[in-house]
Amino acid sequence: MTSKGEASTQAVASLQAEINKLKHELQTLKVDDHVPGMGDMIEIGSYIMERLVQLGCTKMFGVPGDFNLGFLDYIEDHPLIDWVGSCNELNAAYAADGYARVNDGSIGALTTTFGVGELSAINGIAGAFSEHVPVLHIVGVPSTSQQKNKPMLHHTLGDGRYDAYFKAAQQFTIAQASIDSKETAGAVIDRVLTECVVMARPVYLMLPTDLVSERIPAKRLKTPLNRTPPENDPDVEAFVLDEIVKLVEEAQGDAVILIDACAIRHSVKEEVKELFKRTGFPVYSAPMGKTAVDETEDRYGGIYVGSISHPDIKEKVESANLIISVGALKSDFNTGNFTYHIPIGRTIELHSDHTRVQFAGFPGIGMKRLLPKLTSRLHPFKEGAIKLDVPKFGLSVPQDNSDVITHEYFWPRVGEFFRPKDVIVAETGTSSFGILDVKLPSGAVFVSQILWGSIGWTVGSTLGAAMAAKERGLGRTILFIGDGSMQLTVQELSVMMHHNLKPIIFLLNNSGYTIERYIHGMKRKYNDITNWKWTHLLNTLGGEEGKTCQSYTVNNRDELSRLLDDATFASTGKIQLVEVMMPQEDAPRALKVQTELTGKSNRYAVTQWT
Amino acid sequence: MTSKGEASTQAVASLQAEINKLKHELQTLKVDDHVPGMGDMIEIGSYIMERLVQLGCTKMFGVPGDFNLGFLDYIEDHPLIDWVGSCNELNAAYAADGYARVNDGSIGALTTTFGVGELSAINGIAGAFSEHVPVLHIVGVPSTSQQKNKPMLHHTLGDGRYDAYFKAAQQFTIAQASIDSKETAGAVIDRVLTECVVMARPVYLMLPTDLVSERIPAKRLKTPLNRTPPENDPDVEAFVLDEIVKLVEEAQGDAVILIDACAIRHSVKEEVKELFKRTGFPVYSAPMGKTAVDETEDRYGGIYVGSISHPDIKEKVESANLIISVGALKSDFNTGNFTYHIPIGRTIELHSDHTRVQFAGFPGIGMKRLLPKLTSRLHPFKEGAIKLDVPKFGLSVPQDNSDVITHEYFWPRVGEFFRPKDVIVAETGTSSFGILDVKLPSGAVFVSQILWGSIGWTVGSTLGAAMAAKERGLGRTILFIGDGSMQLTVQELSVMMHHNLKPIIFLLNNSGYTIERYIHGMKRKYNDITNWKWTHLLNTLGGEEGKTCQSYTVNNRDELSRLLDDATFASTGKIQLVEVMMPQEDAPRALKVQTELTGKSNRYAVTQWT
Repeated sequence: MTSKGEASTQAVASLQAEINKLKHELQTLKVDDHVPGMGDMIEIGSYIMERLVQLGCTKMFGVPGDFNLGFLDYIEDHPLIDWVGSCNELNAAYAADGYARVNDGSIGALTTTFGVGELSAINGIAGAFSEHVPVLHIVGVPSTSQQKNKPMLHHTLGDGRYDAYFKAAQQFTIAQASIDSKETAGAVIDRVLTECVVMARPVYLMLPTDLVSERIPAKRLKTPLNRTPPENDPDVEAFVLDEIVKLVEEAQGDAVILIDACAIRHSVKEEVKELFKRTGFPVYSAPMGKTAVDETEDRYGGIYVGSISHPDIKEKVESANLIISVGALKSDFNTGNFTYHIPIGRTIELHSDHTRVQFAGFPGIGMKRLLPKLTSRLHPFKEGAIKLDVPKFGLSVPQDNSDVITHEYFWPRVGEFFRPKDVIVAETGTSSFGILDVKLPSGAVFVSQILWGSIGWTVGSTLGAAMAAKERGLGRTILFIGDGSMQLTVQELSVMMHHNLKPIIFLLNNSGYTIERYIHGMKRKYNDITNWKWTHLLNTLGGEEGKTCQSYTVNNRDELSRLLDDATFASTGKIQLVEVMMPQEDAPRALKVQTELTGKSNRYAVTQWT
Repeated sequence: MTSKGEASTQAVASLQAEINKLKHELQTLKVDDHVPGMGDMIEIGSYIMERLVQLGCTKMFGVPGDFNLGFLDYIEDHPLIDWVGSCNELNAAYAADGYARVNDGSIGALTTTFGVGELSAINGIAGAFSEHVPVLHIVGVPSTSQQKNKPMLHHTLGDGRYDAYFKAAQQFTIAQASIDSKETAGAVIDRVLTECVVMARPVYLMLPTDLVSERIPAKRLKTPLNRTPPENDPDVEAFVLDEIVKLVEEAQGDAVILIDACAIRHSVKEEVKELFKRTGFPVYSAPMGKTAVDETEDRYGGIYVGSISHPDIKEKVESANLIISVGALKSDFNTGNFTYHIPIGRTIELHSDHTRVQFAGFPGIGMKRLLPKLTSRLHPFKEGAIKLDVPKFGLSVPQDNSDVITHEYFWPRVGEFFRPKDVIVAETGTSSFGILDVKLPSGAVFVSQILWGSIGWTVGSTLGAAMAAKERGLGRTILFIGDGSMQLTVQELSVMMHHNLKPIIFLLNNSGYTIERYIHGMKRKYNDITNWKWTHLLNTLGGEEGKTCQSYTVNNRDELSRLLDDATFASTGKIQLVEVMMPQEDAPRALKVQTELTGKSNRYAVTQWT
């Protein structure tokens, strides 16, 4: 899979990483001697680094700016944290988000500078909020005395409002804080980090230039941060369990589990696995829950997405006596535009912070604590009992005579290319809809942003995802993205190359914003984009074509198939970009149905051109 | 200057534009017949377009998104408004800002989509707020009924908070509104547009999908919007005038005028010209006021920037009996880090919305109305009276034997390349500091973002500036930008080519974030960037090298000089990018002094590497 030279470079890098890790462990054990001559004190910049390492976060994304430069010294010097300088702040936020999604149970982190930097990142932070992704956003801000005196510094609004960015951040983060003294710094940092992990949402931390190097007691670090949600109220929980068990028994085995995004983000994948292993209930997934359950599992039946579902999946889910929904995020694109046909009277909804049993809501009863107790209360599946059929999930490659790379052909065909543990990133639009019905291999991780849906997001998130995949020993990172979306965030390809990441990028060239065309304006010029020389891109942005990067164009099915069957291509010895020529007005089945529904809700007047 | 074919293409385009304009004038006169069969009604989408045309704004920047697609139909169909689809929303906001700066007295406009789009643009909007630039930000939002029912649509935060983006926008705009019914639409649109123009600040307008095509009375359009600030209170104004005239007389001719950013943004350049023409007072400019006064004027003495000023300028300004300051924005980078040595007791400050005479403040007394009255009250300069010396402003090209393109050499040398009416855009950092001391030709327009200082801003703003320059018959658009900054927003080069713009881009290749190096971390890796193949860029992003675009690398003074002396190069027949190889740790004089002062204010601990 790799050349000899490369293998030995990798071996050296891996040994070096091991040495760093051991050194750091030693250091942590000897925390009192850590800073010679200072007893048990640690600088605030280092304190943050140590907490991140404890949480399993070893990458800091961001862009230098004069208010965070002092902090960057601590990042660059830390033996276990890598600084990943992004080309811009939005891309850094996307990368931190992608990293957090793949680095299960940990968080993502980024650093920006006051005003200009943090505001450029805010769309990425809002997306992490929307989709329940834990991201720490550290903003380097003016010194505590400047914040009191409010001079007209560069990066300010010119009117003395030093709190404007904080107020904006409040809208999109679950906790916010400004470190304003060394006395409270440790507690403040611990508070926002705990909220970040437990709530699985972004948090905002202002770090003034003059406090970065202040020393605070290191002994707090000996107490690890709490990473689990609080216990449920025992009386309410017992009542809820009784209710659920009763309903499950009444369903007489005719129950299905429907898993969604928050099962991944609030870390109950294992608990759900125990549940269906024990009960034998079929499991279906919403689009945002794809790969929460291994898609090769016996009891896994595929993607349920309301009216857009394949008919047999739709029938099985909607006709079940009881639906146990885990971690639902019922957004339009995740539910076939709100076309779930599941009566509330037959539904149990488990969430991170509340539970619904039919019509009754139970605030504060979270699934992380509830699920294991529920599983242990339910009867194990017995041989001979009713075992509900599960539809065979997956697509087969169409065998017609066409040579055109249609979506109908493309997705099942690349499906055959995937391997266990691949990380598969799909951009909102044709890609996220196209890949839904493809059965992913065991251990594969699906990464997409279906609720927030910010185009261009996957380029940054692929950077973060690929880094997390490396850390966790996962497989290849494979990105699917349209030409329109790539143009928003393209520069991050350069950062991938700088860090020697080797994703495969399938660039679907269909001359514009296809999802928008389907919603409104099929022939409109505003949905066209300029065609770039896609196969020149990697080489222009810092790669050496044929050496550190490789680009391809595939014009027809044969060219695509030959490339996918090529062992060198599949082994990802370098970063690769495949320009896939597709017809402009083609789209995956699910996208066509979804956008028709969206266009109707938007109620645009029908004009001559639509 | 241009080839024959090109000239005739331009002639045809210009005739076509003339025809469109005449047609539109006819249409406006016949507004009652405008929409056949509908009497005097007009669709809300068209109403906005008509108001923009009245204000002299004929470009709409933005990115399509499903909540603005219906509105884009109106833009694309309007005979006098051009849709400029940017690669991403931040770049679109930068472009609208750049357009507004060069299109004197008008505004810039952009359209984005709910949540993801508008938040990506918010840093650009905040910059326009900070620097007093009038920009209309129209956000396509869900329909009025969706806003009432708050479904979990894509692009929402998933928790029903439909007002979160509005709340964020409130921090960075001077007026905000959501169009929520056709009855009030006209008044709402007129209100935010008036605020935008009069206050010279960005405004935020939510346009729901279901209202775009609703019809409202067109007769409001017959009343043009008020574009001037209100009259000053006559009693206060008379008092202030008396005070100022008295001080001027007491100064016995020893007075100087110091002009700054807000003189440009609040449109008093002509009024200031009248003032110094009549009085003969010397005029100096702050960095952000560069080109507010024609730099070839007799009475113009150059840039005053506190301690960073050239010694003779510093002496002349600080020793004057009276300083009349017009439109000051006293930010750190605009004042040599707050090192003005001008006692308040010798200063008169004229602002858009208030006046200061020595220690006394007069809120509500604005300079637009005050200045002409002041000028008429002052004695004209008389032959034989004291006429203060004005230093000779400008740099000469150093004549040493070095071949290296240092900043000391580069800026005076390109200074010789400029022509009257060129639009010169300089990125924050080495470029904005380097160009300060270069004397720009008559009618030249200087564009820079010195207070907000968001790196990457100039790429988007060059797009907008070049479009406005074309409309106003100005000269070439010339951008100076470092490699680090270019990487943030590079994709917008593709939009320039798509619209057949032909700026010259000087890409200063000095391997990283030079301004940050000078503030902190000279040798730090976080200030390095990946080197791109800069001369491949235009061709990769949609150009045809040698045909529609041309790229160059200049390694030494001789190569640079030869290129600058080349008539074909200077005639800008196509878009051109010049990679200028400069030493990594070189910087302009003013930057070195400024960053030393900034580094001190930030109070970073000195670590091993700095």
